[in-house]
Amino acid sequence: MSDSVGQDSQRATGSDIDALVDGVRARRPRAIARVISLVEKDSPLLRAVTAALMPHTGRAQVLGLTGAPGVGKSTSTSMLIAALRAQDKRVAVLAVDPSSPFSGGALLGDRVRMQEHALDPEVYIRSMASRGHLGGLSAAVPQALRVLDASGFDVVVVETVGVGQAEFEIASLADTTLLLLAPGLGDGIQAAKAGILEIADVFVVNKSDRDGAEQVVRDLKYMLSLGGRHSDPGAWRPAIVNTVATRGEGAAELITAVDKHAGWLRHSGTLERRREARAAAEIEAIALGLVRGRFGDVHGSGELINSARRVVARDTDPYRAADELVAAIV
Amino acid sequence: MSDSVGQDSQRATGSDIDALVDGVRARRPRAIARVISLVEKDSPLLRAVTAALMPHTGRAQVLGLTGAPGVGKSTSTSMLIAALRAQDKRVAVLAVDPSSPFSGGALLGDRVRMQEHALDPEVYIRSMASRGHLGGLSAAVPQALRVLDASGFDVVVVETVGVGQAEFEIASLADTTLLLLAPGLGDGIQAAKAGILEIADVFVVNKSDRDGAEQVVRDLKYMLSLGGRHSDPGAWRPAIVNTVATRGEGAAELITAVDKHAGWLRHSGTLERRREARAAAEIEAIALGLVRGRFGDVHGSGELINSARRVVARDTDPYRAADELVAAIV
Repeated sequence: MSDSVGQDSQRATGSDIDALVDGVRARRPRAIARVISLVEKDSPLLRAVTAALMPHTGRAQVLGLTGAPGVGKSTSTSMLIAALRAQDKRVAVLAVDPSSPFSGGALLGDRVRMQEHALDPEVYIRSMASRGHLGGLSAAVPQALRVLDASGFDVVVVETVGVGQAEFEIASLADTTLLLLAPGLGDGIQAAKAGILEIADVFVVNKSDRDGAEQVVRDLKYMLSLGGRHSDPGAWRPAIVNTVATRGEGAAELITAVDKHAGWLRHSGTLERRREARAAAEIEAIALGLVRGRFGDVHGSGELINSARRVVARDTDPYRAADELVAAIV
Repeated sequence: MSDSVGQDSQRATGSDIDALVDGVRARRPRAIARVISLVEKDSPLLRAVTAALMPHTGRAQVLGLTGAPGVGKSTSTSMLIAALRAQDKRVAVLAVDPSSPFSGGALLGDRVRMQEHALDPEVYIRSMASRGHLGGLSAAVPQALRVLDASGFDVVVVETVGVGQAEFEIASLADTTLLLLAPGLGDGIQAAKAGILEIADVFVVNKSDRDGAEQVVRDLKYMLSLGGRHSDPGAWRPAIVNTVATRGEGAAELITAVDKHAGWLRHSGTLERRREARAAAEIEAIALGLVRGRFGDVHGSGELINSARRVVARDTDPYRAADELVAAIV
């Protein structure tokens, strides 16, 4: 990977970057794909591309969509695309895979379920990995969102599987976070108990034609009644929407709930605060990536492995070695 | 959490730390649990505790055990404990949960399957989270291993669920990594294809009494025949062991494979290199944690949010803001 990054920087000229940026702004799928690939591999070109895209950003609405495996994320995304397209909105989907090789490929399979939109030129669907990104998902996702925002998509749906810390972070990067639940998956409610109540703005109880859907709604209502941030005056009271995504049922109610939340975000000043938090997370992630790059230089020089040898030999302890490593990069 | 950490540092005296270290060395479960709690929350006390424990470390054999959900990790761990206890070895199990609140609790349930060993004073079982740890799992796991090592456990089994990047890192921290597979879970082989071949030292085909077990073994042999690091001369050729963990079948073969790998690790010099790599990862993770702490200070001072506001207002871009953030901590 470092080779291709190296080639990128050698080959890139100002006009190459201009062409890429123009392509993104013209919503050409190939240009968008190429720039998101740059994001995935944390290319040095991103600095210039980002600077050029910045003036054209700030419009897109970002919806986070998450939930445990099996709740119907891809069919729900597909339903959401259809409903937004009916309003003539341009929609991009970023399917983020925060996973390792252990579970790689799951999202790719799911994309098949969105294929009904594959030929719509105003819909762009892309899955993204971030293994090569020094700043991790916290940096990669906002950068990809920026690309899609500059491309003129009205709505960007960030779909992540509800497993692992990474996608928890991602959910916090959205304007509006939708948590999908389904009857018969007790985990959903468990998740809600464990902290997701704090980040979900809209609860979508999918597969609502199945037994147990009412119980899921009751459980949610009960948990919401217990308070948390939602009990503050002026706070958003999360909506609960029943859907059967395979049949498109509940799409209108879902859109209404999302719109209502978008209105609240604007009027309460929360939208601004969320976007600031997203920018802060991105800045910090890029900065951490820069620091890790510097550690990598120290690593390359053999200093880190020397420290490690001294730790293994018990001549020092890892804290003192870490102090030295930090001192070496400043 | 910062409160309790603060209290720790205020309350802690040299004799408190001595008492904790003595308790760990005497293998008192309460002392071990307390120090691993310090690891989980990244307590400032860890520096002193680590320095005091260092001289007593370097003996324990670390086995990593991972695999997709449903392959039988906990029953396999339980079988492994029984086999090691039959050799009169002291065994600690660290069940690491790299997950978010979304899937929290899974490992706790699994621990029930190890309860047959709960009353054995020479067996210690503990699950560990690391949400509070600035250095993340890469720092937390080696620190917990050090505690168990200093406690005099001959073998420490690190059990992680095979989902997500975090536990991929953890597997690389073990002396010997066991990858569990089971027939009927195609994911296992998918995982193997995607990179796990490079880190697994022993493949355990569990549930080998089921249809499809032979196919799993054949697939593994085929993939191993394709090369990778295993084709270098002198390289370890991963063992494949069939087990039925619920009935204890294959335990002897598994122990033999692990012992053989341990011998190879020593004779080839790989053990030393792996431990150096583990120490290097720990040092880097602690150092990154320190840097993040400094970013946090910048955050607290309001500088980061000011930068974020300028990014949202498109007055700057996140790369320039990140450069400033790095400059601010050095």
